[in-house]
Amino acid sequence: MMHTLADTKQNAMGNTPLEKAGIEIKVGKVVSLDAKAHTVTLGAGEVLSYEKLVLATGTEACMPPIPGVDKQGVFTIKKSMSAMNALREKVHQAKKMVIIGGGFIGAEFADELSKDPDAEIYLIEIMPKLLLTVFDDEFCDEITLLLEKQRINIRTAVRVVSIDGKEGVESVSLESGEKIPADLVLLSIGAKPSSKLAEKAGLRIIDNGSIWVDDYMRTDAEDVFAIGDCALKRDFFTRKAAPVWLASTATAEARNAGTNIYGIRVLHQIQGMIAAFSTQIGGKSFASAGMTCRTCEREGFRYVTTTAVAPDRHPGMLPGASELKVKLVFADRAGVILGGQVSGGSSVGELINVIALAIQKRVPVRELDMMQIATHPLLTSAPTVHPLINAAHQALAKLRSTIK
Amino acid sequence: MMHTLADTKQNAMGNTPLEKAGIEIKVGKVVSLDAKAHTVTLGAGEVLSYEKLVLATGTEACMPPIPGVDKQGVFTIKKSMSAMNALREKVHQAKKMVIIGGGFIGAEFADELSKDPDAEIYLIEIMPKLLLTVFDDEFCDEITLLLEKQRINIRTAVRVVSIDGKEGVESVSLESGEKIPADLVLLSIGAKPSSKLAEKAGLRIIDNGSIWVDDYMRTDAEDVFAIGDCALKRDFFTRKAAPVWLASTATAEARNAGTNIYGIRVLHQIQGMIAAFSTQIGGKSFASAGMTCRTCEREGFRYVTTTAVAPDRHPGMLPGASELKVKLVFADRAGVILGGQVSGGSSVGELINVIALAIQKRVPVRELDMMQIATHPLLTSAPTVHPLINAAHQALAKLRSTIK
Repeated sequence: MMHTLADTKQNAMGNTPLEKAGIEIKVGKVVSLDAKAHTVTLGAGEVLSYEKLVLATGTEACMPPIPGVDKQGVFTIKKSMSAMNALREKVHQAKKMVIIGGGFIGAEFADELSKDPDAEIYLIEIMPKLLLTVFDDEFCDEITLLLEKQRINIRTAVRVVSIDGKEGVESVSLESGEKIPADLVLLSIGAKPSSKLAEKAGLRIIDNGSIWVDDYMRTDAEDVFAIGDCALKRDFFTRKAAPVWLASTATAEARNAGTNIYGIRVLHQIQGMIAAFSTQIGGKSFASAGMTCRTCEREGFRYVTTTAVAPDRHPGMLPGASELKVKLVFADRAGVILGGQVSGGSSVGELINVIALAIQKRVPVRELDMMQIATHPLLTSAPTVHPLINAAHQALAKLRSTIK
Repeated sequence: MMHTLADTKQNAMGNTPLEKAGIEIKVGKVVSLDAKAHTVTLGAGEVLSYEKLVLATGTEACMPPIPGVDKQGVFTIKKSMSAMNALREKVHQAKKMVIIGGGFIGAEFADELSKDPDAEIYLIEIMPKLLLTVFDDEFCDEITLLLEKQRINIRTAVRVVSIDGKEGVESVSLESGEKIPADLVLLSIGAKPSSKLAEKAGLRIIDNGSIWVDDYMRTDAEDVFAIGDCALKRDFFTRKAAPVWLASTATAEARNAGTNIYGIRVLHQIQGMIAAFSTQIGGKSFASAGMTCRTCEREGFRYVTTTAVAPDRHPGMLPGASELKVKLVFADRAGVILGGQVSGGSSVGELINVIALAIQKRVPVRELDMMQIATHPLLTSAPTVHPLINAAHQALAKLRSTIK
């Protein structure tokens, strides 16, 4: 972002909308919670009592056990304006940058940094491919190629053994023996829920560190709610704890808690996390929702998968047309959609939400094959070849052949 | 289109994909059908017999009962390359053009013509607003303003009384007394199913001229199917005959008939027409699916409606950001989504398909309020303000207040 946006301040949300809604804003650190007494204590010693309490403490970046992570010039992404400004300033000075962790944050950060033609960028991932938790191989490979085209040096399947230098960072050493000079290191290896306050107060914490909540965002302490990244997410398909933290989920949970805070009024039933992501890398858009082939295999789901490709305008030679690729994953016998991955132009951003809704509604393949969609030469693929419909249609035949 | 695309020929689909699939192409006019004998007769006298017959005769443009519609220089949109080429050639010569009928074809044609700075364009609509059958007033008005900005002269709520001239068209006279000079007139007042062949063969025809079909596109004649614009469409909400002809529906019907032609194998159940449209006018995108407030009132549906607006990127000052507006219509007591209308940038093209799927799955407002979506700064509105979600959330409160 640092290159596209002149000033971060003008992009801050500000307090006005909250103040207009009659909300009193108090800035301070809560150091303890007494759930029985219905009070919280601030760092300055002030005690506040509450009728209802909502914990929205978010996540904090994971720190890997690598020697040297505390050196000057090593950053994580923090949810603080001052921290982001410090990182931004350092980015403008640095020329040799190493990003450790090739998930969304790492890949997007590398993509943005590469707009500076003088920057020398390394992206290091311990797994065999970038973005492996969200995409199947072909999408990971496409993203890798796009980043490499932008002169980003990618190292996968390799561990960082140390971050070296005197006071400040000077280089990063890999298990392979490679030593990469660095003025700046970004750690983007993941995040974990910030749940220490809740834990100390005796609230139930689930093994990955999330605060346990029911379908209405209620914790096991009376009158205490938890929403957003700090609150437990359950996977849509397996009901296991799902370490997926998305702003879109957080806002839905906020609406859920807000509506139901003085008594359950809307049976919202959080259906579980389908993990709907979108991104733009190297000018191309990528998105994923639900299960990939990889997660199906890991979780023991039998699946059928199909991929369809077509221009996202019709005819395809219209200015602004991109190739749109849709991969769908269906439950083998049930024929219900489990997931989808998409790449293409900016229409990907909302097309993935068609797939996301289909997953949430457990739409069978025969309904997707007959789905009524709007199409237009300047806005979508042709109706004859729309990759979402065509992938579903192919799956219909493929699923038939799997039922003996 | 004529300005954006250099040559129409290169955009023709061609026969290759059909030939590759082993299909023999025969060009000729079928003059009669004997459904009992299982034969069709071509204009040249040749008789072909069939096991299964699929009628895909489409629509033809309606001709209004206006004196002078047969003059040289008066065109309709025909599904024929030579007719389109003749129109295209005439458009390049003409400077004064009158379009009669302000639906999608009329509005898009006017929009495209206005790219010629010397063209003098009039768009005449008999109803009080343009695109009245698809959009509510505020969207119609926005489209009208955009076209007027492009120097298109719009006349609404007025009847054309005659198309005047000696051999060729010279002017168009309106009921209001206005006489508009014209080198070219386009008639875009609508279309009707081409069902004469079927009618003569004794197949059941529904009052608007459509060929009656069941859920598997079977006509009432054994082994005869009808698909696309010539086949009966039933409204999703009322089951009435729905005079809505869309390429996306036609292709779905083709898949339905193709899958089931030798016996019903997939219970496709055509759910009925939700009429999902998108368009781009004056560089802005507009889309609609399902019922508008106007159709709710006409059909006696009690409804609640909400509108939400936000930039389609976040922060909204990102380059390429447009204002995205989503209007949703819900059934008053049931709280189920009935329709949606959207305007904004090109993301509208797939966002309407999220709404289209929600309508087809009869999604209740509380599920839309909790719907998991993917969001990204460069691709969508912020999750806190996404107009689809926010319109649903507002409706939740509004619906509650209607239940006494």
